[in-house]
Amino acid sequence: MPHNSASRRQFIKNTSATGLSMLAIPALVSSVFAAQGLKKKVTIAQDDIILFQGDSITDAGRKKDELNPNNPGALGSGYAMIAGSTLLFQHAGKNLKVFNKGISGNKVYQLAERWEKDCLALNPDVLSIMIGVNDFWHTLTNNYKGTVKTYSDDLTKLLDSTKQKLPDLKLIIGEPFAVTGVKAVDDKWFPAFNDYRASAKEVATKFGAVWVPYQSIFDKAQRTAPGVYWTGDGVHPTLAGSHLMAHAWLEAVK
Amino acid sequence: MPHNSASRRQFIKNTSATGLSMLAIPALVSSVFAAQGLKKKVTIAQDDIILFQGDSITDAGRKKDELNPNNPGALGSGYAMIAGSTLLFQHAGKNLKVFNKGISGNKVYQLAERWEKDCLALNPDVLSIMIGVNDFWHTLTNNYKGTVKTYSDDLTKLLDSTKQKLPDLKLIIGEPFAVTGVKAVDDKWFPAFNDYRASAKEVATKFGAVWVPYQSIFDKAQRTAPGVYWTGDGVHPTLAGSHLMAHAWLEAVK
Repeated sequence: MPHNSASRRQFIKNTSATGLSMLAIPALVSSVFAAQGLKKKVTIAQDDIILFQGDSITDAGRKKDELNPNNPGALGSGYAMIAGSTLLFQHAGKNLKVFNKGISGNKVYQLAERWEKDCLALNPDVLSIMIGVNDFWHTLTNNYKGTVKTYSDDLTKLLDSTKQKLPDLKLIIGEPFAVTGVKAVDDKWFPAFNDYRASAKEVATKFGAVWVPYQSIFDKAQRTAPGVYWTGDGVHPTLAGSHLMAHAWLEAVK
Repeated sequence: MPHNSASRRQFIKNTSATGLSMLAIPALVSSVFAAQGLKKKVTIAQDDIILFQGDSITDAGRKKDELNPNNPGALGSGYAMIAGSTLLFQHAGKNLKVFNKGISGNKVYQLAERWEKDCLALNPDVLSIMIGVNDFWHTLTNNYKGTVKTYSDDLTKLLDSTKQKLPDLKLIIGEPFAVTGVKAVDDKWFPAFNDYRASAKEVATKFGAVWVPYQSIFDKAQRTAPGVYWTGDGVHPTLAGSHLMAHAWLEAVK
């Protein structure tokens, strides 16, 4: 809830007006997938190796010196850990191996630089990539010169070569998202950032990847609790936001 | 699955014989609650402060210098973090505050020593305690002289004074468990350890606490994957085991 009582009253008024304040969050997540016609799911099979890749949102403070799969510390304390633990629970007996190799600050070209070691060498059956927020954000804050075309071209190139080396790879692409009005995310973000979201979706479609619509999910989740409940700075999820992401990610698999 | 192919074949044979290998793990967990007639649940209410207390299983490597509620690092990487994140997700809008104050190695008397600071000062609405494995284990390994009566008396005394100070407290007690045949848990554990489980349940009943039957759940989970899948040493859960515990814990609340 908002911190001061005026914004709290406004928030209650807003949610009452939508009539949706009591709709359970899991149902909200499902409704986003349904509204966008997202029916395709990745099947989790016996002995699958599952790799989460991305930036700080995926990294989530993971222990980089811990190399074993299914290790809580190595999976960090974000959505990858929560989703990974759920897979290990729900698919017990399938001998799954779950890895997280997200690294804070990464843009697509930085994934490419470490791809041999942090993706191909692990020989994943399921690859989940969520990347793009820094490809935009760092143009605002770090004098990064890449454009949305750089992002799209780099991601296409990375997935082209990955699919050549791992033709049976089951691919999941998570939508980059940002929560407007929360700390780091100001008016400069939208609509410009929407082009990155659209590009990620185009690439996902091109490669037959299963798509996780995080932006719409974070947008809808604000009917139940305000943006600061789900993300501390507009970009990085809180623990509630990490669980929201994990829940969404799990909607994309069966 | 067992590491060598002979035990793997035996495991498959065993699970086939029970006819239960395909029963989904969430259904197994529910079936344990049903079989034991455990219907009472704790209601999670608006503005509730939820405190997880216990030993290393609860601690799970939490950051002890992080004092804020709902912080992923402060909740560790075990069942408290997974259950806590689920509460924050499912009960978004209720302004919950989730704390974990488990400390590795603790027996009941060590909870008592730090109770003012690590429980009462937080003024919890929901208190979840899981304690007891060290009260037994350390009699085998650390020359600890406490008996099952010490355990029962100490726990009763702790809860008596807690209930006096927090009369409306909603109490959850988790059953101490051990998985026979996995590393640290050898023939010396059973049946002696059963007395600690029984004592914990007696105390839970006496105080009207909701009971989480972890021992039976870990026992039943072995129909789907062997003991080493759920706990690395017979006492501490793997990530799969932590999710199993979180799922069981969440069965005890609504």
